[in-house]
Amino acid sequence: MQNPVTVEVTRGNLVESRHRGMAVVVDGQGKVVFSAGDIEAGVFPRSACKAMQALPLIESGAADAFGLTTSELALSCSSHSGEDEHVRTAASMLSKAGRDLTVLECGAHWSSDQATIIHQARTLEKPNALHNNCSGKHSGFICTCVHTGFDPAGYVGYDHPLQVEIRAVMQDLTGAVLGADNCGTDGCSIPTYAAPLRAWAHGFAKMLTGEGITPERARASRRLMDACMAEPFHVAGTNRACTKLMNVAPGKIFAKTGAEGVFIAALPDAGLAMAVKCEEGTTRAAEAMIFALIARYFDKQGETHDTLMKMANRTMKNWNGITVGEVRVTETMFA
Amino acid sequence: MQNPVTVEVTRGNLVESRHRGMAVVVDGQGKVVFSAGDIEAGVFPRSACKAMQALPLIESGAADAFGLTTSELALSCSSHSGEDEHVRTAASMLSKAGRDLTVLECGAHWSSDQATIIHQARTLEKPNALHNNCSGKHSGFICTCVHTGFDPAGYVGYDHPLQVEIRAVMQDLTGAVLGADNCGTDGCSIPTYAAPLRAWAHGFAKMLTGEGITPERARASRRLMDACMAEPFHVAGTNRACTKLMNVAPGKIFAKTGAEGVFIAALPDAGLAMAVKCEEGTTRAAEAMIFALIARYFDKQGETHDTLMKMANRTMKNWNGITVGEVRVTETMFA
Repeated sequence: MQNPVTVEVTRGNLVESRHRGMAVVVDGQGKVVFSAGDIEAGVFPRSACKAMQALPLIESGAADAFGLTTSELALSCSSHSGEDEHVRTAASMLSKAGRDLTVLECGAHWSSDQATIIHQARTLEKPNALHNNCSGKHSGFICTCVHTGFDPAGYVGYDHPLQVEIRAVMQDLTGAVLGADNCGTDGCSIPTYAAPLRAWAHGFAKMLTGEGITPERARASRRLMDACMAEPFHVAGTNRACTKLMNVAPGKIFAKTGAEGVFIAALPDAGLAMAVKCEEGTTRAAEAMIFALIARYFDKQGETHDTLMKMANRTMKNWNGITVGEVRVTETMFA
Repeated sequence: MQNPVTVEVTRGNLVESRHRGMAVVVDGQGKVVFSAGDIEAGVFPRSACKAMQALPLIESGAADAFGLTTSELALSCSSHSGEDEHVRTAASMLSKAGRDLTVLECGAHWSSDQATIIHQARTLEKPNALHNNCSGKHSGFICTCVHTGFDPAGYVGYDHPLQVEIRAVMQDLTGAVLGADNCGTDGCSIPTYAAPLRAWAHGFAKMLTGEGITPERARASRRLMDACMAEPFHVAGTNRACTKLMNVAPGKIFAKTGAEGVFIAALPDAGLAMAVKCEEGTTRAAEAMIFALIARYFDKQGETHDTLMKMANRTMKNWNGITVGEVRVTETMFA
């Protein structure tokens, strides 16, 4: 097992906290071109695999039948902040399927984004299921069920035909066995499956390149990833990492984060996909790791590389705007 | 170096994330009665040492001269949530010193507590310095400066006589050299110093027992710790760990958290103080570690032990209230 990636957080001249993580980059054939840490350990991808979970929406014909827009496809792969535009877009998806928010089984929560929760507090008595960060994905699920003829009731369950279909899609992509033994329940109540970090990256490399999957699945995969790259705001939101990352080099970076320190990205020009998992599940470290990892595949003299490295290694300021330290990815990543 | 403490976060039957940390328990003479991980590594205590920083408020005579209440003394040692009562209490302290919030140099921020930020969003245009989690500590600083005759302007600076005095107090308590070499700037702009975790715990053990310090400092220390134990709400706030912990066994647990995964506690009956630092700075792990560590010093058959262990090892629920996993401290702690 190789050394993990580490991310250091400094204060003054000293390291205050230290994160560890795994990272892997693979091509469409599954060849590992970079790795750090134990890339064969089981990792729950959480929301980072939403584009995989949205494939039945395209493959079933539901997206075309309901005339879903690019923004709506991006939202079906999103963990959004619950901003007004996200909520409207999810409602629109449900409306096209002749349903409303009462069919959603994801639960409701206030936004975790500070500016958004302040706005929500001032305009809402309380949030509903459309404000859930997963409401786009769930609205896509409803569209798929309605179009396919599945009863949406209980669509979050392990044995519901939609989840059986999603499991099969993810098995095809990752090459991993996904079942009750490595299944957990996600924040929005659908199943999530632990598989090697390498397998998740390989699945996204197959989606990106079309290698090892049917042409139909390859087309559906690229359509979803292209939608995310075309509408980054709908994949996350204002000031969110996925959105900022895809805006750095439009059309050149697909990226999606997941809870507990997971981040997955795919680079069309390089034909590579990559995944990181911060061992203890911290978002700030997963972000720094994926920013630095993506930067490796852009020209070191170019603006994109520079921007990505400034996002990876950044200064931290306090309430008075005084610089107090920095977040920095260690050298391992650049060896 | 001993093995670190680990805290596992599970999902389904699998470990999803794993935290590492150091932990130490010492008595008033500095004897280490428990340790895990590298307890000699430098750790910034951040807000966990606020009761030390408040000692000049008592020792200068300012607290008595201005007639500060028990709640106000507790607030001077607090990282509060910015709830209305906290804000009123900080304003009262400043008023007693003939000042107002314009003298505060801590900066302003919205509450990090969800219920509080929702309330703030509905009642405030924006927060001011009184809402800063450190406003109680800073109001105590102002009281000290005004009573002592120090010009409060620039009281957050390394060379301001108040910070020089605080540095001397913390050196006396910890036995560590605190200076420019191990100094960083805290979130509220005052200096924070890295010293071994063992030294921070020893400092609090000296405060608790009076060993190795002057009788005057011993009395001032117990007065502050007693104030915190008497008014736990003013040390943190609704649903906050410090407040809940001190309410578990009133008068028997002093506890204060700090940013980046630090937690310090002192147990009057046992005459022991303890400190933990989560390596990567995560609050959920630091809380689990200190809960389990404190539990070691209560009767295993008793209600307090049971309550603390239920706080340490807890289930996690998702947006629908479904149990998805647990946070659990590993066996090391209980060996």
